Amino acid sequence: MSEPFDAVDVIHAKRDKHPIPEDELRWMVDAYTRGYVSDAQMASFAMAVLLNGMSRDEIRVMTDAMIASGERMSFAGLGKPTVDKHSTGGVGDKITLPLAPLVASFGVAVPQLSGRGLGHTGGTLDKLESIPGWRAALTGDEMSAQLRDVGAVVCAAGSGLAPADKKLYALRDVTGTVEAIPLIASSIMSKKIAEGTGALVLDVKFGSGAFMKDLDRARELARTMVELGGDSGVATTALLTDMNAPLGLAIGNANEVRESVEVLAGGGPADIVELTVALAREMLSLVGQPDADVEAALADGRAMDTWRAMIRAQDGDPDAALPAPRETHTVTAPRAGVVARMEALPFGVAAWRLGAGRARADDAVVHASGVDLHVKPGDAVAAGQPVFTLLAEDASRFDRALAALEGAWEIGQVAPERGGLVAERITA
Amino acid sequence: MSEPFDAVDVIHAKRDKHPIPEDELRWMVDAYTRGYVSDAQMASFAMAVLLNGMSRDEIRVMTDAMIASGERMSFAGLGKPTVDKHSTGGVGDKITLPLAPLVASFGVAVPQLSGRGLGHTGGTLDKLESIPGWRAALTGDEMSAQLRDVGAVVCAAGSGLAPADKKLYALRDVTGTVEAIPLIASSIMSKKIAEGTGALVLDVKFGSGAFMKDLDRARELARTMVELGGDSGVATTALLTDMNAPLGLAIGNANEVRESVEVLAGGGPADIVELTVALAREMLSLVGQPDADVEAALADGRAMDTWRAMIRAQDGDPDAALPAPRETHTVTAPRAGVVARMEALPFGVAAWRLGAGRARADDAVVHASGVDLHVKPGDAVAAGQPVFTLLAEDASRFDRALAALEGAWEIGQVAPERGGLVAERITA
Repeated sequence: MSEPFDAVDVIHAKRDKHPIPEDELRWMVDAYTRGYVSDAQMASFAMAVLLNGMSRDEIRVMTDAMIASGERMSFAGLGKPTVDKHSTGGVGDKITLPLAPLVASFGVAVPQLSGRGLGHTGGTLDKLESIPGWRAALTGDEMSAQLRDVGAVVCAAGSGLAPADKKLYALRDVTGTVEAIPLIASSIMSKKIAEGTGALVLDVKFGSGAFMKDLDRARELARTMVELGGDSGVATTALLTDMNAPLGLAIGNANEVRESVEVLAGGGPADIVELTVALAREMLSLVGQPDADVEAALADGRAMDTWRAMIRAQDGDPDAALPAPRETHTVTAPRAGVVARMEALPFGVAAWRLGAGRARADDAVVHASGVDLHVKPGDAVAAGQPVFTLLAEDASRFDRALAALEGAWEIGQVAPERGGLVAERITA
Repeated sequence: MSEPFDAVDVIHAKRDKHPIPEDELRWMVDAYTRGYVSDAQMASFAMAVLLNGMSRDEIRVMTDAMIASGERMSFAGLGKPTVDKHSTGGVGDKITLPLAPLVASFGVAVPQLSGRGLGHTGGTLDKLESIPGWRAALTGDEMSAQLRDVGAVVCAAGSGLAPADKKLYALRDVTGTVEAIPLIASSIMSKKIAEGTGALVLDVKFGSGAFMKDLDRARELARTMVELGGDSGVATTALLTDMNAPLGLAIGNANEVRESVEVLAGGGPADIVELTVALAREMLSLVGQPDADVEAALADGRAMDTWRAMIRAQDGDPDAALPAPRETHTVTAPRAGVVARMEALPFGVAAWRLGAGRARADDAVVHASGVDLHVKPGDAVAAGQPVFTLLAEDASRFDRALAALEGAWEIGQVAPERGGLVAERITA
């Protein structure tokens, strides 16, 4: 018993709304990672945090302790600034794919460590793995070389980053403590800060298809993370963006890559272009290029060139055909009118049921599966006009996907009122 | 996966202050006992209960589920009413010893299932085991026979009663959730109700030597348990009693038995007599003898006769000499005056350090160890007059016991103001 503190004291402090001394909180995270503090003790603590909150100082200390639990990367020797983007996740959110090469085309390093999806949202790595030959796993040296030579890297986060977060996240998932904003913030930011980025732009989603359903909670999370980034030496800005309807027209893996390439070719759906440009501007502002003409880089092929170099550097063939679905099923408009509503979450669930996502970490993803939208809310449709197409390897999947979509979309007479995609901007 | 519910849903309901459906709460307790719900999940739930409370209905359901986790005793066939007493624990609290035979001497069955002490408060069984030959373990049949023939039984609670409570209590102890009033109430009452008593009197302590330091929290606990008893079919009354100073003059094991026998012989310290009589009146009122002359039963030897029969029935010798300490150390008054203060908790800790209590469940208790007080708060003392005597097997224990008592007592010029021992009475 040479432990300097007692987990029960730390729990009592949070429970009774007393400040937790910095050394005790650091010890709690470290001792939990070592297994001295039990899952039960950490679960009780997490519930106390959820119900009583954490001070700005406590969040910083907790995050720093989670970073200290593992390795910390550094790209200080690159000779160019680094900037990263993190999205809290949404349906059809493939923004990283056009965004990373777009920003890198301005001579900035974009080290984008990503994960695989679990549940209805596919992961960025799953999407890129639709590209024949492309590999997600890079060594640290490969990553540095690619950042130097190409600028953009999207690769798998090593298991050595913030192992405390990994353990705590798995615990929160089964103990009803996922929704604690201080813990969400420290979970996201500990990984991003450990990755060694110099600046960070957060895309915090709100709406029916987002983890945060309402704008107030999304704003609180964004504000918490922006403060935490600043307190930890990483310049951070957040955009609050609407996630009520799917982003773009493609929901899946291969189809999302195809849509991303359209954007890089100067086309693509308006909402994807809008969000890509808005996030690129924020990222470039943070590294001293507030006036960079990002639209020009999409229009003149610079972003596309960086994309092709980025895919090739990871052994992918940017010209290879993407996997196509064996079976499709198209749903048409029952009557003429205007698309009044398309809810993000059910479309995400449908894509998941078609095979685009996974239910367990070791499931395989079907890259050609997903949903292609043909129209978006506000678009006029004629009776019999295609509204969306389901994509699958196996037609037997369509019934459950269609069940998820029942009541999730609507043809009406009036176009829905919609605010802008970017609702707010949160800065330090 | 044939489990009907998900622990995360139950945790979410309590976390978000929604009522927990009865079947889900019952399942949660049952599934935790079976090990399907994990310690981490139950710890998160317990913290949510501590911070958000529980409705009267939820407390009843939770308690009933804990009772259902084990066996349930019944004394319906005895042909006489049963009534039990429970104390939340205090320093020098030996009231069960004179109380059980006193109440039983009125033709009432008093089935008093007790535990061993952990920490500074010795358990009732530890005290009685000072008596040569006396044994705590009885079979159900032995217990029934003794209740019929003698009326009073003090014996060890079998491990089959409310096993969910045992598991949950151990968890609460290490997760900072001991202080949740709904869980304290259901823990105490599940065991008492499972014991099959028809009526119950609670001695809920408040003050520096009690688990509940302040009267408001003690009142809340008492009210919760009285309601819970009524809701569960056990007529329950509670007294709120002062635990700032030690009860009586003896703190330990053998010396507490000696003091109890003095009370049964019609003597003993005034506070012990007062509390014994007050609790006996409440117990007898609950079984239809509100006018029983309990003082007479102490004065005329009826209670003593029952005590002797009770000890003999469990193979103890009521006439045998009790163990005496090998070493004693007496502390005297440094000056003349009035005893202004004697704090219960430090005297309890001193007795513990002298060997009267145990630090771990498998430690042995030294029956002759403890503290004998010679005066009580309010008593006048001359300079050099004995204030208290430490009792131990080994003189090396005195230093640490004296260290616990530093600043814990005071000779002043004015007698302290003290309210009555029984502060309030809580009834259904």
